[in-house]
Amino acid sequence: MASMILSDPSSAASVHRLSFTRFSNSLVFLRRFVGPLHVFSHTAALPRALSLHAPRSSRFITASAKVIDGKSVAKQIREEISAEVTKLKEAIGVVPGLAVILVGDRKDSATYVRNKKKACESVGIKSFEVNLPNDASEQEVLKYISDFNGDPSVHGILVQLPLPSHMNEQNILNAVMIEKDVDGFHPLNIGRLAMRGREPMFVPCTPKGCIELLHRYGVDIKGKRAVVIGRSNIVGMPAALLLQREDATVTIVHSRTKNPEEITRQADIIISAVGQPNMVRGSWIKPGAVIIDVGINPVEDASSPRGYRLVGDVCYDEACKIAAAVTPVPGGVGPMTIAMLLSNTVSSAKRAYNFN
Amino acid sequence: MASMILSDPSSAASVHRLSFTRFSNSLVFLRRFVGPLHVFSHTAALPRALSLHAPRSSRFITASAKVIDGKSVAKQIREEISAEVTKLKEAIGVVPGLAVILVGDRKDSATYVRNKKKACESVGIKSFEVNLPNDASEQEVLKYISDFNGDPSVHGILVQLPLPSHMNEQNILNAVMIEKDVDGFHPLNIGRLAMRGREPMFVPCTPKGCIELLHRYGVDIKGKRAVVIGRSNIVGMPAALLLQREDATVTIVHSRTKNPEEITRQADIIISAVGQPNMVRGSWIKPGAVIIDVGINPVEDASSPRGYRLVGDVCYDEACKIAAAVTPVPGGVGPMTIAMLLSNTVSSAKRAYNFN
Repeated sequence: MASMILSDPSSAASVHRLSFTRFSNSLVFLRRFVGPLHVFSHTAALPRALSLHAPRSSRFITASAKVIDGKSVAKQIREEISAEVTKLKEAIGVVPGLAVILVGDRKDSATYVRNKKKACESVGIKSFEVNLPNDASEQEVLKYISDFNGDPSVHGILVQLPLPSHMNEQNILNAVMIEKDVDGFHPLNIGRLAMRGREPMFVPCTPKGCIELLHRYGVDIKGKRAVVIGRSNIVGMPAALLLQREDATVTIVHSRTKNPEEITRQADIIISAVGQPNMVRGSWIKPGAVIIDVGINPVEDASSPRGYRLVGDVCYDEACKIAAAVTPVPGGVGPMTIAMLLSNTVSSAKRAYNFN
Repeated sequence: MASMILSDPSSAASVHRLSFTRFSNSLVFLRRFVGPLHVFSHTAALPRALSLHAPRSSRFITASAKVIDGKSVAKQIREEISAEVTKLKEAIGVVPGLAVILVGDRKDSATYVRNKKKACESVGIKSFEVNLPNDASEQEVLKYISDFNGDPSVHGILVQLPLPSHMNEQNILNAVMIEKDVDGFHPLNIGRLAMRGREPMFVPCTPKGCIELLHRYGVDIKGKRAVVIGRSNIVGMPAALLLQREDATVTIVHSRTKNPEEITRQADIIISAVGQPNMVRGSWIKPGAVIIDVGINPVEDASSPRGYRLVGDVCYDEACKIAAAVTPVPGGVGPMTIAMLLSNTVSSAKRAYNFN
């Protein structure tokens, strides 16, 4: 139930209702990270990135991973998008538009839609919202999609999931024209993502956010061993394809993998997206690895006013002692998803007008 | 030059003009392999499958891998297809049809087209052939594709590659309707192949042939470590996606991989498709692994009447001493590609008439 409340199946966005607390202040975020994080191929040396945070002369170094601050990066990206939107408007008078279709009265879905709308407003993207009752027909939803497909002021269309059970989700999602499929889940997009020499129209938001974090923190991907834990269509699989495109050597670890710990320990870069609280322990992590934790899992916590708190797939405290860098939960990948949705919408508008 | 002669870029089919010689007789091929090949997770034990070929009492066992006889399997598959074609014709009067479009006068391309035509005839598939001169226009080719798209007696369309340089290959390939794209290279097909819960219309012929060999030899894939060497759109990448669909834990090794030997040595199943003669040495292979060698590489051989012979990516003699099973080159994957093309054509005809 709690996980229903906390994770958004549309664009795999995760809207955190808990406040961003202890993680964001642990390190000052550098706007554009100066000097790349070094990812280590061998386990012998003490990672240089870690030694940044301890006096070089100290004989007893308490290793402490760099925190990959998704909240700050997402904020910076929103500012960049805002500037692009202004430029687009001033140059050719175009305002990017995102249409969101919400069917039914699920409170969590309503929250997600509201958050997307707010995010759009904050960067100057026009948002279009359609709210249909729970007993609306598939035909009605298709009609709205068809209208938005034809509307030149709409550059991205998002159908908030889940849909009521009487609707065929695949039919509805397939109706969104590929030029406006800002979620990037269309199989044609995924196929292009998998193929060398082809370019997807849109990259799915959450995996795109993961890679963007690596880029912004100067993490070298080419030639590195990467392990993606989880093979979902919306995160794990496209994340693996993206890492592959950047010349990492990628292994996908999943529920049928016999020795996930041993395989994960070989990785220079770990992206975990399974939804198992604290599954990735310190023993799974190679010293100096960089960890992107997509999981957002509620666990009971009597000390929290809500009775629970959010943790990732990765045991954060253990990871901090071994990894070179790690995303916190919340405040890591989560804020990046909506930022990437805005980014996809602006890209779509620019493409529609051939604007660079 | 020799590799131009020997490898067919359409459907990644490889037509061997050298005769099938020393490999095919080394083991009698069992029609339907009785009892699965055991793929070993650990390197300690002497693989059971290997011990099949040496007396149990012998203290000095010369390990000898089982030969995965693609030529025989392909023959059996053609017989099965032939029976299906007969059934289809008798039940509903439909004859599956494959159209092949050849542009220009390349001798190698003409040979491939002739071989495909012959293979069609051998199983009762009707073949349609269009030969256009080298200076034909893109428009002409598109016109033929459009006609075949609309022709109910054509269930598969293949444009022989390479096309003359004045034509846009991607435009032309994209014109083939997805229901008749028996090569399975359309990004929509690849996307569906990558996604859980989606089904591709067609699986690309060569990787499909690789997996079919594993199936027919009873090789367990689920939960096994698999390494695919090479990440081409037509073999490596779709082979990895297929293994992933069957619940293997898959790693793609490629030109940017830093320690390919070490990673490959972890694999229970190796599929190699890089085009590097004898690249995969014995030291790359875990004892008891199963090896599918897609490479077909000509190497100089003064003792051969043609001055060259064909070898795979895998050092066959060394592999034979370590692996549980290995495909020879030629006579391994090669014959499977055309068999899979025929199989895709018949599937397409059956789908068109909803015939099971």
